[in-house]
Amino acid sequence: MTTPSELSPAEAADRLAIRELFDAYAHCADRRDSEGQKALFTEDTRFVVYMAGEGSEPTYALDGREALTPVFADLRQYEATTHFNGQSTITLDGDKATGESYTLAHHLFTVDGERKIMIASLRYLDTFVKIDGAWYFAERNLIVDWTDSRTSTP
Amino acid sequence: MTTPSELSPAEAADRLAIRELFDAYAHCADRRDSEGQKALFTEDTRFVVYMAGEGSEPTYALDGREALTPVFADLRQYEATTHFNGQSTITLDGDKATGESYTLAHHLFTVDGERKIMIASLRYLDTFVKIDGAWYFAERNLIVDWTDSRTSTP
Amino acid sequence: MTTPSELSPAEAADRLAIRELFDAYAHCADRRDSEGQKALFTEDTRFVVYMAGEGSEPTYALDGREALTPVFADLRQYEATTHFNGQSTITLDGDKATGESYTLAHHLFTVDGERKIMIASLRYLDTFVKIDGAWYFAERNLIVDWTDSRTSTP
Repeated sequence: MTTPSELSPAEAADRLAIRELFDAYAHCADRRDSEGQKALFTEDTRFVVYMAGEGSEPTYALDGREALTPVFADLRQYEATTHFNGQSTITLDGDKATGESYTLAHHLFTVDGERKIMIASLRYLDTFVKIDGAWYFAERNLIVDWTDSRTSTP
Repeated sequence: MTTPSELSPAEAADRLAIRELFDAYAHCADRRDSEGQKALFTEDTRFVVYMAGEGSEPTYALDGREALTPVFADLRQYEATTHFNGQSTITLDGDKATGESYTLAHHLFTVDGERKIMIASLRYLDTFVKIDGAWYFAERNLIVDWTDSRTSTP
Repeated sequence: MTTPSELSPAEAADRLAIRELFDAYAHCADRRDSEGQKALFTEDTRFVVYMAGEGSEPTYALDGREALTPVFADLRQYEATTHFNGQSTITLDGDKATGESYTLAHHLFTVDGERKIMIASLRYLDTFVKIDGAWYFAERNLIVDWTDSRTSTP
């Protein structure tokens, strides 16, 4: 790994802002703030979901921030979700950036009086863009590496 | 998200120290270093636990660093714990800071010869304070979003 | 926790590079890039595995980067792995560094037509070294705190 000898205060600010964007997505999802969640995306964003893993055909693709409304509203079906964020590796290129970010998304719900948990192991392959000094998701490719569902007891 | 154009070396140091505080809490918990864990808190700290999630009545509140002793000693009942830390979103305001931090706390124990695992999905809503150049927990609000318990096989 | 009042751009670059090294290990493991994974280590690296937890006898120790080949190739037996990285606490000392890093390593595989998941809760106690401006693993001590295996339904 080549390492620049200094991380400039400007680059450090960009890296922090992009990490906060990733984490704000989780916060808004888990707190059901779908308007806040949409505001993290550019107006002409593209959101592509690969339910069968990387390299598979996209399950669906959404164009434009407004098209995200039903996706985020869909989270309301769960009693609780926890979008637990792990590593996020970012490559900066001026006002653009790309990255791979890991999330374990936990979903709790009830079927026939029985509590269930579904864990989705996600990797987001993102493109970010900086507009007027703020970073946004320009494109999110959501890779579902695997899911695991079972009955859950508190 | 508004993004400052530069992250100053002073702010970067504060952010690193607060992240290390969060991670030291996990390290001390998992290594059963209850004295080290207590030392992360201000003397007049407040620790409030919400077992029934955010917005519920507090299950209990502890005032002062010494009141934490039984809480941390309680971890000794487990054969192993892993306080796995995810995202931590911090807002700095001079010598104070607030933040939301995610932890998946894994607890292993044995009942009637059967190994059990209990996973608690936690969010810490913290207030931090900087005293004589070091950061401490001034207040921790521990939100238990959900727990999941089951038999476990190695 | 003593806190330096400033994090220099040079130290920030070192910390970022070491975090990226930790995350690159996970990326290479999960994408089955064993050559890329080996390149993260010094030529004379030492890799020691403690399957029975910290303080136990080493299960095995490997000397030299080339000795890692079978370990990383071994990951190919799994249908999917997710090396989910949490906190990483680093102490810098010039061109050397040490640290403790948490990983929840998820392994999916099939036995007699039944999908299984094995989760290993790992802590890496690492020594890092900077050579010609790039950081490498000089020594990895892999502590397996616990594992948890069960049948898994998507």
